Amino acid sequence: LAGVRCGPDPRLRKELIDLEASMQIGGRMVLTDAEQRLDALLAKLKQDEMSRKDFPPSMHFFKARRLIQASPLFGLLQEMPKGAVLHVHDFAMVDVEWLVKNATYRPNCYMCFTDSASVRFVFASQGPKPVERCSPWVLLESLRAKMGNATKLDNSIRGNLTLFTDRDPETEYPSQDVVWNRFEAAFGALWGLVTFAPVFRDYYMEALNQFYADNVMYLELRALLPQVYELDGCTHDQAWTLQTYQDLTKEFISTHPDFYGARIIFTNHRHAKLSVVTEAVKKAMQLQKDFPDFLAGFDLVGREDQGKTLWYFRDALALPAEKGATLPYFFHAGETNFEGTEVDQNLLDALLLNTSRIGHGFALQRHPVAKDLSRKRRVAVEVCPISNQVLKLVKDLRNHPATALMMEDHPLVISSDDPAMFGSSPLSSDFYEAFVGFGGVKSHVGSLKQLAINSIRFSALTPKQQEEALVLWQRKWTKFVAKNQVLKTN
Amino acid sequence: LAGVRCGPDPRLRKELIDLEASMQIGGRMVLTDAEQRLDALLAKLKQDEMSRKDFPPSMHFFKARRLIQASPLFGLLQEMPKGAVLHVHDFAMVDVEWLVKNATYRPNCYMCFTDSASVRFVFASQGPKPVERCSPWVLLESLRAKMGNATKLDNSIRGNLTLFTDRDPETEYPSQDVVWNRFEAAFGALWGLVTFAPVFRDYYMEALNQFYADNVMYLELRALLPQVYELDGCTHDQAWTLQTYQDLTKEFISTHPDFYGARIIFTNHRHAKLSVVTEAVKKAMQLQKDFPDFLAGFDLVGREDQGKTLWYFRDALALPAEKGATLPYFFHAGETNFEGTEVDQNLLDALLLNTSRIGHGFALQRHPVAKDLSRKRRVAVEVCPISNQVLKLVKDLRNHPATALMMEDHPLVISSDDPAMFGSSPLSSDFYEAFVGFGGVKSHVGSLKQLAINSIRFSALTPKQQEEALVLWQRKWTKFVAKNQVLKTN
Ligand SMILES: [Zn+2]
Ligand SMILES: [Zn+2]
Repeated sequence: LAGVRCGPDPRLRKELIDLEASMQIGGRMVLTDAEQRLDALLAKLKQDEMSRKDFPPSMHFFKARRLIQASPLFGLLQEMPKGAVLHVHDFAMVDVEWLVKNATYRPNCYMCFTDSASVRFVFASQGPKPVERCSPWVLLESLRAKMGNATKLDNSIRGNLTLFTDRDPETEYPSQDVVWNRFEAAFGALWGLVTFAPVFRDYYMEALNQFYADNVMYLELRALLPQVYELDGCTHDQAWTLQTYQDLTKEFISTHPDFYGARIIFTNHRHAKLSVVTEAVKKAMQLQKDFPDFLAGFDLVGREDQGKTLWYFRDALALPAEKGATLPYFFHAGETNFEGTEVDQNLLDALLLNTSRIGHGFALQRHPVAKDLSRKRRVAVEVCPISNQVLKLVKDLRNHPATALMMEDHPLVISSDDPAMFGSSPLSSDFYEAFVGFGGVKSHVGSLKQLAINSIRFSALTPKQQEEALVLWQRKWTKFVAKNQVLKTN
Repeated sequence: LAGVRCGPDPRLRKELIDLEASMQIGGRMVLTDAEQRLDALLAKLKQDEMSRKDFPPSMHFFKARRLIQASPLFGLLQEMPKGAVLHVHDFAMVDVEWLVKNATYRPNCYMCFTDSASVRFVFASQGPKPVERCSPWVLLESLRAKMGNATKLDNSIRGNLTLFTDRDPETEYPSQDVVWNRFEAAFGALWGLVTFAPVFRDYYMEALNQFYADNVMYLELRALLPQVYELDGCTHDQAWTLQTYQDLTKEFISTHPDFYGARIIFTNHRHAKLSVVTEAVKKAMQLQKDFPDFLAGFDLVGREDQGKTLWYFRDALALPAEKGATLPYFFHAGETNFEGTEVDQNLLDALLLNTSRIGHGFALQRHPVAKDLSRKRRVAVEVCPISNQVLKLVKDLRNHPATALMMEDHPLVISSDDPAMFGSSPLSSDFYEAFVGFGGVKSHVGSLKQLAINSIRFSALTPKQQEEALVLWQRKWTKFVAKNQVLKTN
């Protein structure tokens, strides 16, 4: 036969390449002509990112941020309707600049310096009671008046409220211990600001504004539902806090009809005692009864490597099932680098506890049985690239396990965890890392589209609500696609 | 029913945990009582490693080396009969100390300094011809005599022959470009030493000695088969070089009857022209005819990210099949962090070219189709942890993709690539990283045993030779197991 070749068959090669491409997230998406033209633009812009001398996803985000923000691709991703944010924490949503310039400039704001080099804030009508291991309280208004130029003070306050720094992040945060301590210290510092009722309300509204501006249309918010206090020291209970979230969300929707809303995942710290978690689960069941359309479920938060395991809390977590109630779980699990430890078992236990999604799931690749379960049961992994990098699970984001998950279309969504702590955008920075770092040359407009659709499909919304939200999203998407295109040149 | 529980079923949980454990490499290995007692010792020693403040696999090997060398677990792994090394390069096998103290101290050794801050060596009976972009040649013997104390000179020579350094590796090698340039410069520096016939022979014998001492019983050596020269400048051809390897191997076996031998994988640089590679493939076919029991196959070497792709060389690589010859391939492929580039396509193309094994395969997790092919066809991945870390593909070895591959018992072997360049042991350091870093708490004596058996099963030996080698290995293993045990305490 003429033309017989003994080398690799180019047709078979092409088939396998196409097969692999079709297996990735959004790989089988049928694209409109307009979407294909957007894809040409995306490919061109991504090529610019890949040919940089410094490839942003391989760099620490603190160093890459300026490069990313300046890139046209990032601009496009900001504009893209990205759907929902399903993994973000209550007090790490709003740019710290807002806390410094707005919250701390309010009257009656006191500050003290702790003996562990952090700060505390409180609003009080009269001088607040002294706090242990803290300097005496100073009224910020008087302190600023005394200093004349408050820039230095404000910078120092800002530094206490976020992990982000212009200094070398490797030197500032040499280990997971250091970065987690600083992370928790920052929450300690902003606590007194954000739990003050007027700030609490404004903070949430500002969060909705910022996420909306970043083209996010729906939020599922992990919230501690703390006791919120008034100027006179009186405090509100958790139902009040949840009610406030709900009222404010409705208020926001009334002025932003293309915003779909928010739900709350009630969270408790995983360092707490069993009895405390048991009470929290009971409280969650009660709140779910009282706010059936607003409370999405329950989760445990805090550094997994040092916290107690899900298995340790199993009796508390089994309560709803025992009482015939359905309390959806959204467990953080597998946010660890250590393999085979008790904490590393959380992933499988989260699935055995019927978790609706998995927060992070960084260790999922190391757990073939858990991975298989999560795939078959369609339990999505909430991947937070920048969080995992800043908290030192992985250095070069190309080595993030979600790279492989995206290539095999594992159920997943991209989220931002604590953008205010990392100095990242509400969602776009993480989308950039996922699209460029995880996806490499391979991800395309279909991947982005699928990520957005996933964020709605894997939400706690009812199927009917999901359809509504998807209609809303599709309208935005069509507009976005129409606006951003290059003419195909072949 | 009494005792009904609604929480997770502990029995199901245990089943899933056991299932996952059984899926890992060596997870279904039936262990003898003695092996179980060795396992208790291994678990204890590994626990010591995991509870260190600085976890060695998460550190750069240059910083971790001292910790690893001092650890009792490492001592045990050195003693363990590890089977074969299937991925190591001809001139990066022997501790550079030997080159400095032995090779450069021979008579007639000349050195010059290149204008790119490296050095060149040559042995010559008379003053050698000047080399471009190099200082005049100096006779090392005279230079050392002049200096009196040669320690500084020797340190400087050593520094030119290896990547290993006591300085901060992140500062020394800030990027892949820098580390690869230094890597290739080191090969340039040692070239004139190791291609001098008397050194060439002694280097290989010393390599066999060092690998044997590290309890390696068989080697498959990737060799460039360069022109080896004599003192008078005459050179030998590739057949001579191959013959020399074979003769020396036989000589070594005659004095070490429990060493099983070596085979050569003929390699060519992947930066070469198509015509050069075509000639190399033809040469490999000829050498295979002439040394059927000694030449194992062919490979292309050099930095993959900057080299030409396998697809570029497809016509050359298809030659053997076209001529009805069988030339086994052992391609380096997927030694890259970039996804979806042309180079990243090498993995699939290596498989389409019927590669017998895959060198590195670092990108395999990002290629579900290639991964599936490699698994089904039993094409083993040669995993070289320290090499991938030093050449900056991954920082924390727990994030190495082989962690997941080991958990699902993907066909793989552990190897050392260029131990002399990395300052690592012939094989034990990489075994340490794999056992502690990839395996975490989960890997055990069965994993180690399977890794050793894999190294023989995935070798180029015939099935009959594999059986022989396994008998030899089993004898060593039984002795090792008998010697290293703790009494089980329950
Ligand atoms: Zn979180
Ligand atoms: Zn190699």
